[in-house]
Amino acid sequence: MNDYSVAALPEGVDPAWLPPSAFRPLGSRRVRVVGDGPLVATVRGEVAAAVRDHGGEVVGDGAVDLELVGTNDSGGDPEAFTVERTATTTTVRASGAGLLYGLHHVVRLGEAAFSAAAAGEFAPRQPIRMLDHWDNVDVHPVMGQVERGYAGGSLFYDDGAVRSDLSRVAAYARLLGSIGVNRVGLNNVNVHRTEARLLTDLLPDVVRLADVFRPHGIRVGLSVSFASPVVLGGLATSDPLDPEVRDWWARTTAAVYAAIPDFAGYVVKADSEGQPGPFAYGRDHADGANALARAVKPFGGTVFWRAFVYDHHQDWRDRSTDRARAAHDHFAPLDGGFDDNVVLQVKAGPIDFQPREPVSPVIASMPSTRLAAEFQVTQEYTGQQKHVCYLVPQWREVLAFRPWGDGGGAVADAVAGVVAVSNAGTDPFWTGHPLAQANLYGFGRLAWDDRLAQGAVLDEWIGLTFADDGVREALHRVMDDSWRTYERYTAPLGVGFMVNPSGHYGPAVDGYEYSRWGTYHFADRDGVGVDRTRATGTGFTGQYPAPWRDVYESLDTCPDELLLFFHHVPYDHVLHSGTTVVQHIYDTHFDGHDEVRRTAATWAALEGRVPAAVFDRVTDLLTEQLRCATEWRDQVNTYFHRKSGAPDGRGRRIY
Amino acid sequence: MNDYSVAALPEGVDPAWLPPSAFRPLGSRRVRVVGDGPLVATVRGEVAAAVRDHGGEVVGDGAVDLELVGTNDSGGDPEAFTVERTATTTTVRASGAGLLYGLHHVVRLGEAAFSAAAAGEFAPRQPIRMLDHWDNVDVHPVMGQVERGYAGGSLFYDDGAVRSDLSRVAAYARLLGSIGVNRVGLNNVNVHRTEARLLTDLLPDVVRLADVFRPHGIRVGLSVSFASPVVLGGLATSDPLDPEVRDWWARTTAAVYAAIPDFAGYVVKADSEGQPGPFAYGRDHADGANALARAVKPFGGTVFWRAFVYDHHQDWRDRSTDRARAAHDHFAPLDGGFDDNVVLQVKAGPIDFQPREPVSPVIASMPSTRLAAEFQVTQEYTGQQKHVCYLVPQWREVLAFRPWGDGGGAVADAVAGVVAVSNAGTDPFWTGHPLAQANLYGFGRLAWDDRLAQGAVLDEWIGLTFADDGVREALHRVMDDSWRTYERYTAPLGVGFMVNPSGHYGPAVDGYEYSRWGTYHFADRDGVGVDRTRATGTGFTGQYPAPWRDVYESLDTCPDELLLFFHHVPYDHVLHSGTTVVQHIYDTHFDGHDEVRRTAATWAALEGRVPAAVFDRVTDLLTEQLRCATEWRDQVNTYFHRKSGAPDGRGRRIY
Repeated sequence: MNDYSVAALPEGVDPAWLPPSAFRPLGSRRVRVVGDGPLVATVRGEVAAAVRDHGGEVVGDGAVDLELVGTNDSGGDPEAFTVERTATTTTVRASGAGLLYGLHHVVRLGEAAFSAAAAGEFAPRQPIRMLDHWDNVDVHPVMGQVERGYAGGSLFYDDGAVRSDLSRVAAYARLLGSIGVNRVGLNNVNVHRTEARLLTDLLPDVVRLADVFRPHGIRVGLSVSFASPVVLGGLATSDPLDPEVRDWWARTTAAVYAAIPDFAGYVVKADSEGQPGPFAYGRDHADGANALARAVKPFGGTVFWRAFVYDHHQDWRDRSTDRARAAHDHFAPLDGGFDDNVVLQVKAGPIDFQPREPVSPVIASMPSTRLAAEFQVTQEYTGQQKHVCYLVPQWREVLAFRPWGDGGGAVADAVAGVVAVSNAGTDPFWTGHPLAQANLYGFGRLAWDDRLAQGAVLDEWIGLTFADDGVREALHRVMDDSWRTYERYTAPLGVGFMVNPSGHYGPAVDGYEYSRWGTYHFADRDGVGVDRTRATGTGFTGQYPAPWRDVYESLDTCPDELLLFFHHVPYDHVLHSGTTVVQHIYDTHFDGHDEVRRTAATWAALEGRVPAAVFDRVTDLLTEQLRCATEWRDQVNTYFHRKSGAPDGRGRRIY
Repeated sequence: MNDYSVAALPEGVDPAWLPPSAFRPLGSRRVRVVGDGPLVATVRGEVAAAVRDHGGEVVGDGAVDLELVGTNDSGGDPEAFTVERTATTTTVRASGAGLLYGLHHVVRLGEAAFSAAAAGEFAPRQPIRMLDHWDNVDVHPVMGQVERGYAGGSLFYDDGAVRSDLSRVAAYARLLGSIGVNRVGLNNVNVHRTEARLLTDLLPDVVRLADVFRPHGIRVGLSVSFASPVVLGGLATSDPLDPEVRDWWARTTAAVYAAIPDFAGYVVKADSEGQPGPFAYGRDHADGANALARAVKPFGGTVFWRAFVYDHHQDWRDRSTDRARAAHDHFAPLDGGFDDNVVLQVKAGPIDFQPREPVSPVIASMPSTRLAAEFQVTQEYTGQQKHVCYLVPQWREVLAFRPWGDGGGAVADAVAGVVAVSNAGTDPFWTGHPLAQANLYGFGRLAWDDRLAQGAVLDEWIGLTFADDGVREALHRVMDDSWRTYERYTAPLGVGFMVNPSGHYGPAVDGYEYSRWGTYHFADRDGVGVDRTRATGTGFTGQYPAPWRDVYESLDTCPDELLLFFHHVPYDHVLHSGTTVVQHIYDTHFDGHDEVRRTAATWAALEGRVPAAVFDRVTDLLTEQLRCATEWRDQVNTYFHRKSGAPDGRGRRIY
């Protein structure tokens, strides 16, 4: 097993939110680390590097400013930690990974860690805080190496195999550990031929990856093909109820756990967009998931079964089929049928990671099933790492949403975990757009505690990442509302999918309108939107419990930002905001575009205050964002002007 | 030099229009071939094979049924031939390639060749009858090996080089020689890195191809990069007026002709869609073309300079820029400036091989320049070898069009030649769709004589290709009007480009509407079409001489089928046919679709009458054609119904 030390950040790679400067308050003090074990060793390594950089001291006996104590308590949550403060000393205690999280709690607080403000008891809200990587081992001819990645090649794989040098993976694991991510899926949920073999003959290389993630409190999992018994095992069937199939999964899984005792489990995309699944055998998804769950059960493993199942050969002429309904239609009837080590991984919205969707009705409909909410850290539909689009406010809204109304709990209370699709790649900035690092950071922080104060996560990230405190206000302005800005200049009022079918970047208002993908807006000369009401539409509103089934059903109560997701309305329909739909489209598109222009100006003033490489990259990307926002503004406005004939109430130029 | 005999058709490859059965009338008779030289040898080989197959006899002295005489006349057109008929003998005489053409005249006539009907004097209408092959040596990651090919890989290249086994090329050359094609361009006009080197270090392999084409009367040419002096020669410039550049072209060309004395010349796509050209040096296209023309001049070579030059980064917001104007704007002012061994290769329509365009105004505007009209045998925009689309009627219309009105000559009189883009590839049927062989055949025949009687070329092709005379009537019905059928179910009234931008197959009504390609329809709730009038539009009509400048300008006289190419009109505009524009759209789309259905039924009745492989392939393709025609019908109708709000006057289902 190689040892990748804290300091081994490869040349030219951005340190993201863990630059040496972030460790100054800690590193300039006297620190003691007590205990042993792999994660204590990681903490010890971090402390040693910090004091070396900043003139502090590791102290064995005597007075210290900071004490990090790995305890042997076996009762509590090993991910939790406590912080106590005396007049002179801050003490962090934890029985497991919590010690690492406590260390980074101290790092984040900076000087405040050495005051009473640091004290408290801390535990993660979500036990499962997972990142899925849609990385291919082989470069896919269409999808590239990291599907929907936009940030270079895979960190894990190169030249058809796991990389020999894993130093960059170690640096990545360190970043993830610092924000409390505790599981990663190592490969694309679309499992191709080579990738399928990670489960069997390529397993020794997976062991090497597991060894690199483990010191940071992270368990690795694999996306597996439901057809593995056929593809890898040479069986005649993958029928989940077939004894030979079950035996194959049991044997194969035992071999995995023999090599990786803390293996997280399997991620499965089944019967979705061409991936194999239980439907081929007349079985349902509970049958499918449970077959695999029973194989990992003896070892404490989990099956992450994706609920992203829909008809991807829909006929656009057929208005009765509604892709938004699909996950609920397929899965809600199976509630209670899944084993307790199955986590049903549900996209946060009912369609597909759009800038604005309602929360998936599945969340409220499967009380007897462990669920995880799935997000995208990668900006597939939100600017593909070319646009500033800080997504934490979106995720926060989802996690705070109350599926049963004010009387019930929030999404964050209803789920057993959160999962996001990472896009980290070999780009020097990890996430392509340097400011998109905040999305990766924020995902971890929100997974740990979705109740962190609005804006706090962003300011934490800015404070850690940039040595100059003077950039905070401007950066906050650039980023904080950027998701809503993106929403304004793209598809309006929750209608979604007006993107180029080839690649999902840039506008194509009718791009999906006559396609097989089930994502339509139905704009005609009179109006626009999808009627998903029970009264006259697809009935999708009926998948929600009260009050939402009624809130969304009625034009009187449906929120403006979701209007076209739930209703087909005439262009002169008056929103709660007081403007008509068509005037809203014009206004938001002009406004969103203007906001990008202002963002570019705000950013330009940061020259010399942020590293030159960051400044230059973001400056270039803002040029592209403005160009693309101009296309969005003009194409969407022109499209609706041509259809509606409605003049802009403010007389602006529409082509 | 390998010898590829007549009989060497590789296993499994379709004989196209030269099956052994086509040679029965000739092959069952007594035949004498007189003379020598390479083409006489080819004729001799054909005759020998035919009599071997069908029981005839090659006779040295004495009475014969057919005599083919290669003469030594040096005065006339070596491509012409005469046919005389006595009571017992048909005699064909020619001084060059005409003997081969005369042989195939005899083959085409079948039994009638041995009657008075065969006699006459025959010469090609067009001295240049050329096929361009958009073949890449290396498989292009996006465009594949044969750009816009749709019929397998390249016949010429495999595995990064010219094929070692050229037997299939020889069979292809034989097919082309039989229809009078006399020049081929061997590589894609978009010249990539490897392909550029065909001119220099890969030249020995080009020699091998030239050797295979030569016995069939065909000279080979190469597409070359205008940047060759830089890319291949290491010069600092490709400025056509630079003496070093001229010297480089002279030296390089001399080497080509030393290896291939009958080399046809260079095909050049310059300053077009990213290809390099003279504009980079502040030179015009006459400067560019003449620089290369002077290099090939001493050897009798020609430069085929494409007029396909336009702004491919157009802003859709800018309605004053008109791609249709581009070729005329760029080239008409240069008339008189091109050397006499330059042929300006002009796409037959002003845009890009659409199912319906007016004839390019360039044809009538450059009387002092040698022009060639360019067509596509490949069905890039006409169904991509998946749809039955017999294009000869389209080309016939173009060649018969009178650019100066009834008092002047036809396009066929105004040009020095015709060129088409072939799509022949490694597909067993050569052209992908078996019935598309008729397009390749018909191109050669029409290039030879565009005044052949309407329908005759198709019947010739059917007669040669299918041994069973009983299939003629049904096949004629399947194919003869298929281009107009295709026109009916696709983009209406000459408006063009409603295809998927990624690949040009299938409908996407707004696919190009907000793109950079300059191909728009401007449909809004009130009307559709491009205003290209002088009065209120782009002024494109002014590029035509009288009478067309006025015919197209006026709604009263503009032909219906080109209405939306020249005018933006309201949906309720009444056509000369008496129906409104929108009702015409509905009617033609329902009708076109119904015609495909009827075509499929007609075809189905041919089972057992045509070879099973042909029947099965065409049957499969008709299924796809019907599916695709259904999409076209429904998407176009729905699109215009949503925009116009106009109900179908006949109450048919519009989605």
